[in-house]
Amino acid sequence: MAEYSIGVDLGGTNLRAAAIDRDGRVLEKISRPTDLTAGPDAVVAEIVAAIRQLRARLGADSLVGVGVGAAGFILMEKGVITSSPNLPGFDDYPLRDQISQRSGTPVILENDANAAALGEKWMGAGREVEDLVLLTLGTGIGGGIIVGGRVLHGCVGMAAELGHMTVVPNGNPCGCGNTGCLEKHASATAVSAMAKLMGLGDDLTAEQVYNLAAAGNEKARLVFQVMGQALGIALANLVNAFNFPLYLLSGGMLPAWEFFAPAMFEEVRRRSYVYRHSPTRIEKAILGNEAGLYGAAYLPFQAAGRGS
Amino acid sequence: MAEYSIGVDLGGTNLRAAAIDRDGRVLEKISRPTDLTAGPDAVVAEIVAAIRQLRARLGADSLVGVGVGAAGFILMEKGVITSSPNLPGFDDYPLRDQISQRSGTPVILENDANAAALGEKWMGAGREVEDLVLLTLGTGIGGGIIVGGRVLHGCVGMAAELGHMTVVPNGNPCGCGNTGCLEKHASATAVSAMAKLMGLGDDLTAEQVYNLAAAGNEKARLVFQVMGQALGIALANLVNAFNFPLYLLSGGMLPAWEFFAPAMFEEVRRRSYVYRHSPTRIEKAILGNEAGLYGAAYLPFQAAGRGS
Repeated sequence: MAEYSIGVDLGGTNLRAAAIDRDGRVLEKISRPTDLTAGPDAVVAEIVAAIRQLRARLGADSLVGVGVGAAGFILMEKGVITSSPNLPGFDDYPLRDQISQRSGTPVILENDANAAALGEKWMGAGREVEDLVLLTLGTGIGGGIIVGGRVLHGCVGMAAELGHMTVVPNGNPCGCGNTGCLEKHASATAVSAMAKLMGLGDDLTAEQVYNLAAAGNEKARLVFQVMGQALGIALANLVNAFNFPLYLLSGGMLPAWEFFAPAMFEEVRRRSYVYRHSPTRIEKAILGNEAGLYGAAYLPFQAAGRGS
Repeated sequence: MAEYSIGVDLGGTNLRAAAIDRDGRVLEKISRPTDLTAGPDAVVAEIVAAIRQLRARLGADSLVGVGVGAAGFILMEKGVITSSPNLPGFDDYPLRDQISQRSGTPVILENDANAAALGEKWMGAGREVEDLVLLTLGTGIGGGIIVGGRVLHGCVGMAAELGHMTVVPNGNPCGCGNTGCLEKHASATAVSAMAKLMGLGDDLTAEQVYNLAAAGNEKARLVFQVMGQALGIALANLVNAFNFPLYLLSGGMLPAWEFFAPAMFEEVRRRSYVYRHSPTRIEKAILGNEAGLYGAAYLPFQAAGRGS
């Protein structure tokens, strides 16, 4: 039987697991809702059940390992999540070791945006490069940085907190204590807030604002233009710092590309001569929600030195 | 004879060269003024003469190679400098290959701030870490990023253009085409400009503004405070992106540390929870002008796999 690894994506809404072989073929996939109210022990039991199910189907001997992508800051050394708004109750819970002990397999824990960046590098829009940055544009904004084919972790595992780059020094307040964080000016939540400020409606979702923009509403278009400018400032800074060949955008805001991308590119071009003098691509990621699963599954291959 | 390499620092004012052994001991050093008016061929002749002089003293057989740090953007693949305001006339000149051919030694060309960052990592304030960022605060602001003990280059060699990070989106205009670049708000030139705006004098050097601040002048102190805030925004973004253990500041502005550092730290603390939750140090570099020489000399050792 061909070797495979299991990637797990632990989100606030769904728990997904996939067995993927080293060529990136998905052999089997499981998805179920995450019941966070039952507490971390119960969630771990669900993860372990999914791992066992896949292992029973595909053979225990061929399993290289398990990678888990989870929302929140991962303290790599301890294998714990800390301060995750999407996974309440997991603070300092020994997630990696619990899954490992109860499933009897080695486990690598990774931040979900980092896993998504690695997935795009392995099987997505970043296959041709060794270095890339991914920004996930959802209700918040996450980031993942791949250097030399590997996730950049920094000293404790908190690298690539790109949603908290300052793009408007005296901008909107953020729960992190800062003002003007990228995610307060360019996330779905930020688009909703700006729509409200523009008098478009008090509780519009980003999708509804998009629909208004698509119907020709100028105020809705301005919202996406301002969002694109904020993204452009952040991307210009990233391009100046990294000079990487590829910057990818993913997440629920991607369908609004046509409305935010022109302002974004204009801003990057103006603010970064590195962009103007290098073959830099800023593009849509292509794996969507699957990126995190691929990246999580790739981690054990990479750790074993058997990544393709 | 012990192996050594030659580090060359090619600046707009001085040309310096040093023979350094693999333990970082400086065996011999040469310094002479750079005569840029004579054109790049003449400058190369001076560099080659310095290399020959050191080689004659220390033995050709023990020379591992030559590293050259130069101001400007280095296109790594071609070994040329491009768009250097400090080295006019060198645009697209085949600097690396000319030095190599005329001296008969392999040459590695590197940006001067990158070389300084590597020097601090090898023999300076960064000896204990593998990952660091250096900001050189002079008339402009340069940057160098060390990842895993090596210079981060990006796809063409333009990584770490940190002086051109946007810190004030609608701030002072910059020659790069942007507004609000870090170096227009936190360099010696920016301090002079702010002193003028504060009515302190039309042509004060940063050192004169420092002397005013040291004498208790509140306006001069405010200038450094604003400079510190700009630096703090940039550093917060870098800390959030890299989560490295160490960020170093060097350059002619360092003596003003006491006046800009408090505002800088306050800004970083507020704008970066990664800083608040990680063992991050922001410190003075310790090698001063020598950093670039050390880094340039280290390049051949590193390329030969013989770095300590």
